[in-house]
Amino acid sequence: MKRVVIVVAFMASVGMAAEPSGFVPASTNVWGAEYPRVDEAGRVQVRIKAPEANKVKVNFWSGPKMDMEKQADGFWTVTTPPQVPGLHYYVINIDGADASDPGSRAFFGGSRYTSAIEIPEPGSSYYTIQDVPHGQVRDVWYHSKVTDSWRHALVYLPPNYDESPKTRYPVLYLQHGGGEDETGWIRQGRANVILDNLIAAGESKPMIIVMAYGYAKRAGSSSPGLAGPANSPEAVRAREEMANTFEDDVTQALIPFVDKTYRTIADRDHRAMAGLSMGGFQTFHVTLRNLGLFSHIGGFSGAAGAFTENKLDAKKDFNGVFADASAFAKKVHVLYLGVGTAENERFLTRIRGFRDFLNEAGIKHVYWESPGTDHEWQTWRRNLKDFAPRLFRKKG
Amino acid sequence: MKRVVIVVAFMASVGMAAEPSGFVPASTNVWGAEYPRVDEAGRVQVRIKAPEANKVKVNFWSGPKMDMEKQADGFWTVTTPPQVPGLHYYVINIDGADASDPGSRAFFGGSRYTSAIEIPEPGSSYYTIQDVPHGQVRDVWYHSKVTDSWRHALVYLPPNYDESPKTRYPVLYLQHGGGEDETGWIRQGRANVILDNLIAAGESKPMIIVMAYGYAKRAGSSSPGLAGPANSPEAVRAREEMANTFEDDVTQALIPFVDKTYRTIADRDHRAMAGLSMGGFQTFHVTLRNLGLFSHIGGFSGAAGAFTENKLDAKKDFNGVFADASAFAKKVHVLYLGVGTAENERFLTRIRGFRDFLNEAGIKHVYWESPGTDHEWQTWRRNLKDFAPRLFRKKG
Repeated sequence: MKRVVIVVAFMASVGMAAEPSGFVPASTNVWGAEYPRVDEAGRVQVRIKAPEANKVKVNFWSGPKMDMEKQADGFWTVTTPPQVPGLHYYVINIDGADASDPGSRAFFGGSRYTSAIEIPEPGSSYYTIQDVPHGQVRDVWYHSKVTDSWRHALVYLPPNYDESPKTRYPVLYLQHGGGEDETGWIRQGRANVILDNLIAAGESKPMIIVMAYGYAKRAGSSSPGLAGPANSPEAVRAREEMANTFEDDVTQALIPFVDKTYRTIADRDHRAMAGLSMGGFQTFHVTLRNLGLFSHIGGFSGAAGAFTENKLDAKKDFNGVFADASAFAKKVHVLYLGVGTAENERFLTRIRGFRDFLNEAGIKHVYWESPGTDHEWQTWRRNLKDFAPRLFRKKG
Repeated sequence: MKRVVIVVAFMASVGMAAEPSGFVPASTNVWGAEYPRVDEAGRVQVRIKAPEANKVKVNFWSGPKMDMEKQADGFWTVTTPPQVPGLHYYVINIDGADASDPGSRAFFGGSRYTSAIEIPEPGSSYYTIQDVPHGQVRDVWYHSKVTDSWRHALVYLPPNYDESPKTRYPVLYLQHGGGEDETGWIRQGRANVILDNLIAAGESKPMIIVMAYGYAKRAGSSSPGLAGPANSPEAVRAREEMANTFEDDVTQALIPFVDKTYRTIADRDHRAMAGLSMGGFQTFHVTLRNLGLFSHIGGFSGAAGAFTENKLDAKKDFNGVFADASAFAKKVHVLYLGVGTAENERFLTRIRGFRDFLNEAGIKHVYWESPGTDHEWQTWRRNLKDFAPRLFRKKG
């Protein structure tokens, strides 16, 4: 009973709108939590109880890292400078231990459940739920012989899917980033809301979106040994092995499951793949090796060359698919690259480098930079909003 | 890139099965996390980094509360005594601050995202995903005029729903407990897996399960003020107000949405409601006031009288629905009460008291106690497994 009462007590704070200071509980808070709070300038107030701690800090992944101040009541508090709009991951460090903020919903990122705060973007409604027809997200399990396991995926079906039993739809395979999982595009990215709004506005074709889990270990394999820095031979080999396993899972298990289970248009002209960061790397890996299956390709803050410093060679790399620009253009209807201007130099350099490589090779593509955003969800929401309307426009 | 590499590095540990000690990473861990670990006896090893902390404890809600020991490497560790099978919530307290375990998936419970560990139940497979036809869970939003907001629900559709476009199904409305949300029955309870297995074995009728969010604030209302202990007049009033708002949401928004959106059999004989703890209280509140809508009722660790110490009166309480046992039996095809034998005295006393009241009133019902389990998910999984096969057996 005690917990129930506590929860009801929390209700007392719900609906308390603007304080004199203009700070309000974040939309990403759990029911009734007063903190964290955000104001119109994007400042954030964090408050956490840690009565016996010696040092408490709040670290925003793409934002300020600040010491918090202990108050007389055992709570620690801080107010940050203004932050850019979007969903920002953060962690509270208590005497050296990274902890979540109990007031925040938890999102899977950085290989753990982490706190995040939504800072509203003035004037933006494309990722806000509106009074338009809504698609539904399905939570599905499919068995993969590649991994010999049940694998979980989320599938967005567009509005009126059930009411139009004879309509078939194109499919976008949409991948999360490293340290995230198949829930990221819905819970953090709001891909379903973005597509609902784009479809209602007539800007995107109705489509199915499949969000699969991007980690995969081949059945019977021992785990890949990995030591050393990111570009050590072992690390490169482990990534290759996982990318190949994931590729086989997509092509041999996931796509057949989706085409069997949903009313798809099961041909390459109506199949797209995109992903963010690691998911972008995987997208290029899977699509460029399987152009018989895909005709639309998107990399958001992640591109084919993102994991290597080596100069690319159109004749040799990617099995030579970029060697003949005109043949490539006939096969690939959309090739899209996105990145945020506030991402670190390594990302910017590599993704711009890949764009330059495409230009040199004469490969038609779309390149778009999200102003002011880092390697974070606001960049990828914007990428999806820009990318989805370009899909499935070619007359079959 | 750094995060991606870290994640790949974690892979090195995945798939390392039994250690000499018999401890293996829990199935509830995030990808690749070595800790927490569990052995066949149900002992749990927890390990967390907190190099500058003075005191670190692990507190299992329905289990041991133990000091952890600091190791030379800055990690704190502990091994618990054997615990009963099931999903156990726990929290790590670092210098007075409650924190999540980064190695564990986070589940919404106790009004926050909390860690939990799955301790396998030897010989049980009813909540394990099997090679049987699977239903799909849909993630839906419906607009409620009662709350004037978009509300989120999960909807389980049984296997072959899409392949049988002329089949209509009965519906079970299934509610979470206090401090939990609409995801609990899937993520913690595995209701979809339990039903898949029951349906495949021919033990349950195929049915739709609707899991809605149990908190609701009426449009335009100020938040209910609440002060004082659980049974203070203010607390009782706040719960009543929320129960009434939720009732209106269910009857005026949710049921019409579900009957419009899915192929339901939209009559009282084919509509059931059940819930756990607070959700059990809500179930009795909603169903007994709306017997024109429901004919099957289940309370798991929560019953109509659970929130009061007062002696119930069949003639006066619940609008007198229990006054005429034979009339009640004609309307209500199943009335089910469950509780775990290890729950605290207050739950046991009140739920057994409600059973005694039903017996005195001559009301036919099913009463079942889950051996050895507390106010926790293993009790409610067992309740669902016992309850679902009893539903929708009456010939229409």
